[in-house]
Amino acid sequence: MKIPTTDSALLRKLADLVGAENIFASPEDRLAYAYDATPMYESIPLAAVRPTTVEHVQAIMQLANAERFVVVPRGAGTGLSGGSIPVARSVVMLFPSWKRILEIDQENLTAWVEPGVLTAELHAAVEAKGLFYPPDPGSMRVCTLGGNVAENSGGLRGLKYGVTKDYVMGLEVVLPTGELLHVGNKCVKDVAGFSFKELFIGSEGALGIFTKILLQLIPKPAASQTLLALYDDMQKAAGTVAAIIAAKIIPCTLEFLDSTTIRCVEDYARVGLPTDAEALLLIEVDGHPAAVADEFEKIQSLCQKYGAREIKIAQDAAEADKLKTARRSAFSALARMRPTTILEDVTVPRSEIATMLQRIQDIGKKYNVTFGNFGHFGDGNLHPTCLTDERDRDEIHRVEKAFEEIFLAAIALGGTITGEHGVGLSKKKFLEKVAGPAGITVMKKIKQVLDPNNVLNAEKIFDLKPKCEYPLQVPPR
Amino acid sequence: MKIPTTDSALLRKLADLVGAENIFASPEDRLAYAYDATPMYESIPLAAVRPTTVEHVQAIMQLANAERFVVVPRGAGTGLSGGSIPVARSVVMLFPSWKRILEIDQENLTAWVEPGVLTAELHAAVEAKGLFYPPDPGSMRVCTLGGNVAENSGGLRGLKYGVTKDYVMGLEVVLPTGELLHVGNKCVKDVAGFSFKELFIGSEGALGIFTKILLQLIPKPAASQTLLALYDDMQKAAGTVAAIIAAKIIPCTLEFLDSTTIRCVEDYARVGLPTDAEALLLIEVDGHPAAVADEFEKIQSLCQKYGAREIKIAQDAAEADKLKTARRSAFSALARMRPTTILEDVTVPRSEIATMLQRIQDIGKKYNVTFGNFGHFGDGNLHPTCLTDERDRDEIHRVEKAFEEIFLAAIALGGTITGEHGVGLSKKKFLEKVAGPAGITVMKKIKQVLDPNNVLNAEKIFDLKPKCEYPLQVPPR
Repeated sequence: MKIPTTDSALLRKLADLVGAENIFASPEDRLAYAYDATPMYESIPLAAVRPTTVEHVQAIMQLANAERFVVVPRGAGTGLSGGSIPVARSVVMLFPSWKRILEIDQENLTAWVEPGVLTAELHAAVEAKGLFYPPDPGSMRVCTLGGNVAENSGGLRGLKYGVTKDYVMGLEVVLPTGELLHVGNKCVKDVAGFSFKELFIGSEGALGIFTKILLQLIPKPAASQTLLALYDDMQKAAGTVAAIIAAKIIPCTLEFLDSTTIRCVEDYARVGLPTDAEALLLIEVDGHPAAVADEFEKIQSLCQKYGAREIKIAQDAAEADKLKTARRSAFSALARMRPTTILEDVTVPRSEIATMLQRIQDIGKKYNVTFGNFGHFGDGNLHPTCLTDERDRDEIHRVEKAFEEIFLAAIALGGTITGEHGVGLSKKKFLEKVAGPAGITVMKKIKQVLDPNNVLNAEKIFDLKPKCEYPLQVPPR
Repeated sequence: MKIPTTDSALLRKLADLVGAENIFASPEDRLAYAYDATPMYESIPLAAVRPTTVEHVQAIMQLANAERFVVVPRGAGTGLSGGSIPVARSVVMLFPSWKRILEIDQENLTAWVEPGVLTAELHAAVEAKGLFYPPDPGSMRVCTLGGNVAENSGGLRGLKYGVTKDYVMGLEVVLPTGELLHVGNKCVKDVAGFSFKELFIGSEGALGIFTKILLQLIPKPAASQTLLALYDDMQKAAGTVAAIIAAKIIPCTLEFLDSTTIRCVEDYARVGLPTDAEALLLIEVDGHPAAVADEFEKIQSLCQKYGAREIKIAQDAAEADKLKTARRSAFSALARMRPTTILEDVTVPRSEIATMLQRIQDIGKKYNVTFGNFGHFGDGNLHPTCLTDERDRDEIHRVEKAFEEIFLAAIALGGTITGEHGVGLSKKKFLEKVAGPAGITVMKKIKQVLDPNNVLNAEKIFDLKPKCEYPLQVPPR
């Protein structure tokens, strides 16, 4: 990739604000931050900048408004929708020194953290105190809590425990215009004014930069049990799931793999899966030991009743981990098959999953492209994963057509185009189809009123046309 | 109260839109809608209007923008912050015919309802199917779900189950400008664009009018157990609560009464409470029968260990109801004592409740006014209730000073001015103290951008000054 020239005058101004040691502008650095985990997107920033104080973040945003450059906040760069890909005239903002867990409050069951803390680090710290932070995105060992809040990350426990938004009690946020905002507190109930905290959660770095995060914790479930059930038919797996919910049981994890994914996982991880199975369910229940025992027994008999050909029960935590490996390694296993792996996250109401999987299969055939499917059966969040090669322009064109049909099919079934990855750059053109014209207008108005100069992660989620209803404001110099 | 003249020309235009049978403009009607459940606020509207279709609601909002009158949406009028009190040149909007539960989806655990459904009606309908809708505001037998969403209502089960916001999955909303917006769906996970659904939840009727509401349901807990514990000292009750949380038990209900409230309740309901007790805890655990039995035993021994002088255990559902009567009748019991009862809802982190109650007692003494205190110990939401007489101007002045100190004390302890009643008219002057200047600016910008002519429940939550940063827009006629 050709490295364009940077803007030395601007970099000097940035260095004046945060110190030259916190500016990364060598060709190698700029190239390193041209990517995130999203395939097929790349763009070279002017530089990366590493603020070490809240005042640094504020000063950078003020300079961005004065000098009209775009700030692209970046956590661990594990995003899958291009949310941290640079855009024209942009600076990537990094948080490597924001790694402290500031407080774990055992009386109020809360934790204050800095945005650069890894999700799994928080898990370990609170579990050592008998507490629990449920959101567990697939990338939890490498992704940051700041990124989780920006993307409203989900994970495997969404059905029972919800997503990141359900655990954010408060935020310290630098607004696009540089003001510092504190929103939320340790109170479960607070109706003082509009609920605008949620606007920032899942705002994909476009409405504010988090400098401190207050998270809710819950008691760590005392027990859990895990099983794998294997089926010759995805419809039978779907029947099992419907029966579990009809029995008023809410497992903490209710995941599935389809036949393609089962074969790839077995080839990769050698966990002993039958490669001729058509569907696999991974089910975990947690809670009070007696409740777990009772629910687990019911689930086993429902798996049998609805036609599981084999059930593997974890006898202990090590075996449970091994069973979960089958699910956790799905993406890595699929990614070995072809040069390019595109992982999507369409979501439908749980009752529509089997229908949606059939649609994906039909669409794959129609366009002659290969999808492995896995994901969160319990909360309707699917990961149709296309195994392709970005150098093959003809195939990529067919892949794009296929995904377009998949997104429209999800919307038609009452679902959405993204359950946990965000819109970013990769799904901009589909957002209006799911949000509707009134919805996207509300979003744009909110963006414009909070970021009048469009300097914070611009060009993500949607494009703001120059001729908009509320003109962008030029602040006094 | 003198009834001012109405605007007959405007009423004719409204009648053209919705039919004369849906306009209520007699002096009696106008007087009836001059009040809600908030003491000491009253204001006569031009009329009340009863839309019967979504198109009616849209047309009324369009007319409001064209003719510059204010629409004040009103559910059951049970609000306690003046949210449905008319303002100058306003029309009250009523929803008596919006009473259908449109769908209970047992596969996806959701319900579609119209805004006029009573909260307790939904409880009964879903519990008949083994499902559960947790929010249970004190007024649940008479309040509406539309009002619950507008106020983000809480209730007795907030500690374990959260509040209304945690159960709203989707909304059909008429925006202040009359556009129809659909937001949310049956998917647990959806990150397509900004999370702006929450803006409407708790917006106190100022950002949109709900015409359909999609609620999340959960399985009905299979068992529950209830006890009352009585103490000679509020500190001992607080110690018990801290010990329960430290034992990693989250009761569904964890309520308290102070000595004044205990005496009033016993005088009113004759439930057999010792009138010399200083504190009462009402504790309910629910869930799997074995978990309930286990947790209930632990809670009993913690109550004993931390100095309860008496524990009353409900042997069955009827006895549990009787024990809950003590808590549910607290407001009615206090309201008998003096002509005017002002029920507040300051909230602090759970760990600060005993301190906050001491502050309230000290402030009551300082201003020589009487407070009964009860509320939700588990989630920190207190109801200091002032027993006073609005005809006594000197006393009311002292009451106002006392509440002002109480609000500031709650904020100083990391709490908020309102946990479940909203800001409305009654707490406008305190909002900036808790939200901060940046927070209130964000709220005002959101209001201005969604309601540029300030026609939807104007003058509530905060005042918009005519000279604002973003000028109010005049639409083309």
